[in-house]
Amino acid sequence: MSKRIKKLAILGSTGSIGQQVLDIVRDFPDKFRIIGLAGGKNTSLLIEQISQFKPELAYSYDKLNLPDNVKLSSMEEIVTHPEVDMVVVATSGKVGLTPTLAAIRSGKKIALANKEVLVMAGEIIMTEAKLRETQLLPIDSEHSAIYQCLRGEAGEVARLILTASGGPFYHHPPEILTKVKVDDALQHPTWKMGKKVTIDSATLMNKGLEAIEASWLFSIPLNKIEIVIHPQSVIHSLVEFVDGSTKAQLSMPDMRFAIQYALTYPERLANRRLPRINFAQLNSLTFETMNYSMFPCLQLALDAGKKGGTYPAVLSAADEIAVQLFLEQRIDFPQIAEIIDKTVSAHHGIGNPTIDEILAADKWARDKASNLVKVNS
Amino acid sequence: MSKRIKKLAILGSTGSIGQQVLDIVRDFPDKFRIIGLAGGKNTSLLIEQISQFKPELAYSYDKLNLPDNVKLSSMEEIVTHPEVDMVVVATSGKVGLTPTLAAIRSGKKIALANKEVLVMAGEIIMTEAKLRETQLLPIDSEHSAIYQCLRGEAGEVARLILTASGGPFYHHPPEILTKVKVDDALQHPTWKMGKKVTIDSATLMNKGLEAIEASWLFSIPLNKIEIVIHPQSVIHSLVEFVDGSTKAQLSMPDMRFAIQYALTYPERLANRRLPRINFAQLNSLTFETMNYSMFPCLQLALDAGKKGGTYPAVLSAADEIAVQLFLEQRIDFPQIAEIIDKTVSAHHGIGNPTIDEILAADKWARDKASNLVKVNS
Repeated sequence: MSKRIKKLAILGSTGSIGQQVLDIVRDFPDKFRIIGLAGGKNTSLLIEQISQFKPELAYSYDKLNLPDNVKLSSMEEIVTHPEVDMVVVATSGKVGLTPTLAAIRSGKKIALANKEVLVMAGEIIMTEAKLRETQLLPIDSEHSAIYQCLRGEAGEVARLILTASGGPFYHHPPEILTKVKVDDALQHPTWKMGKKVTIDSATLMNKGLEAIEASWLFSIPLNKIEIVIHPQSVIHSLVEFVDGSTKAQLSMPDMRFAIQYALTYPERLANRRLPRINFAQLNSLTFETMNYSMFPCLQLALDAGKKGGTYPAVLSAADEIAVQLFLEQRIDFPQIAEIIDKTVSAHHGIGNPTIDEILAADKWARDKASNLVKVNS
Repeated sequence: MSKRIKKLAILGSTGSIGQQVLDIVRDFPDKFRIIGLAGGKNTSLLIEQISQFKPELAYSYDKLNLPDNVKLSSMEEIVTHPEVDMVVVATSGKVGLTPTLAAIRSGKKIALANKEVLVMAGEIIMTEAKLRETQLLPIDSEHSAIYQCLRGEAGEVARLILTASGGPFYHHPPEILTKVKVDDALQHPTWKMGKKVTIDSATLMNKGLEAIEASWLFSIPLNKIEIVIHPQSVIHSLVEFVDGSTKAQLSMPDMRFAIQYALTYPERLANRRLPRINFAQLNSLTFETMNYSMFPCLQLALDAGKKGGTYPAVLSAADEIAVQLFLEQRIDFPQIAEIIDKTVSAHHGIGNPTIDEILAADKWARDKASNLVKVNS
């Protein structure tokens, strides 16, 4: 590997992805230096991270007493700091959008785990990234898989095949969905993730958001993106080229593979702490067709993606509200899709929106989705 | 694709691979021109191919009346012809060795289907290819898979995983092997191939030869090459990188994928005649550990590969004789391994052999293997 130390800013360092990013940084102490950390509501963890990684800048969601040599900063200040080489966007929801755009405009490399950034503003983000010739590296097992399969290829892609574990309810009869408890929905069969994305995996909304994201990242129309159920989560996604040859990327289900790939790209560093596949033990990798009627969120996402404009932002905002309401036990599981559907249907979309128009659509959708429940209850 | 027409010489045009090479050439009439064809014993097919593809030069194993405008030539004359860009080596056995070396020395690109070339003289071939900066493109589903997975990578490989269908007898009890009939052994479960390679697939010798070949092609020691049974022949092989991430190449079992990839490299051309994978229909891809004790040929090959020098040439020659004896029903199936074992054991190897020493070892092994049966019978 190159001797040069990569200097990182991490947004969302206290979340599930953020913690695993710091795990990888810990594995290679002479390869990375942390310039800035932005944490969420877990301030005690942020304090721990600051004391271990000694950033120059820190942002905290809640009030925090920082050591003297650490400067309390906004996310924008952190990502545009001249020393930063790469910004890891491990926030979730809309909060990552503006800082990501600022980071791209400052010419920083981006490692992107925050799905909503591309879902909400894919066109703006990709246009800016191309203009600045910024590397935009995905931190998501599916997108990292596709990115790895496309490595060295000239892009003659026939279709992308996104794999989906199917979440905890895929192999149950549809009737189960009305009785789903929060704790059941938080039990993902193969991945350990944050609450929002775990619920999104149970509704399959997550796969829809990933399809929209992939469409932007890889400049592929949604009708060339296929989704197939693969319960083992070992094949993370596939690319079929125009000659009919298909490439896949595989690993045990562990987010650190995609994180390390983005952090060290274009190099691959030996890391014996990550689990290897034992193919004989693996025994069988299976595939099934997607059951769209049981999981309406997926179709809602694909439809919003095809409509484009402000629709994906509205979908994503409505989903954020609906998932929160479900986690608070104020709605049942099938109502997540209902709220999203009603919100998107009520929206009057804007084509080629500006960031302000996107953020306004996001706010509108949050109010609308919340009001749907207030009216009902 | 580039407008330039690629000018080809095909050695072994009448064999199973050679015919499929011409199938691909037929699919892209404006991309390729045939400069030379070298055929085997099927002279009527060679005459047909000559009349369709109108080469300037032709070689025939048997006497043949050629049209006036086609020059009867040696294989060496064909491969070194100044107009030729790429030589497709689709011969089998040792016959491809000298012409391949001549082609590399003339700076031609090589598309290599003839396993024995690298098995017999891997060190010489790879050294010459590096010296002349020649592209050496594999035409074999496993090696093409690895080549595709390594595309764009910097080569930080932890291990290669060669998949093996297991052939027609893998899931039968070992006792069956003494009763195997020639016709049973010629029924490969997933691939349609020539007789020699089909029997080699039944004994698993084929996988051993492929491991030796992969070791040379990708500069990987044999102890970093793992063989795993994968009965569906859809994943053609895998590469695990040092970071634990694994890439695989997949397609329906059809040799034309690897052939087209080699012929059009670095481009991928759309070819709707090649079958696509339907993942939901595919249902399941399975893996099993290799049963080395039931298939001693594989271990014999790996051992010869590790010893190096003239041992792989001796192994390969003894195998060619033993398979021929089996096809002539002069020995039974388990005797194939016995003949190879006895021949290799009787050999006094030479390290870093010259081509002449390799060819002498080959001749010695053929005599030795043949005599083992004459003495017995």
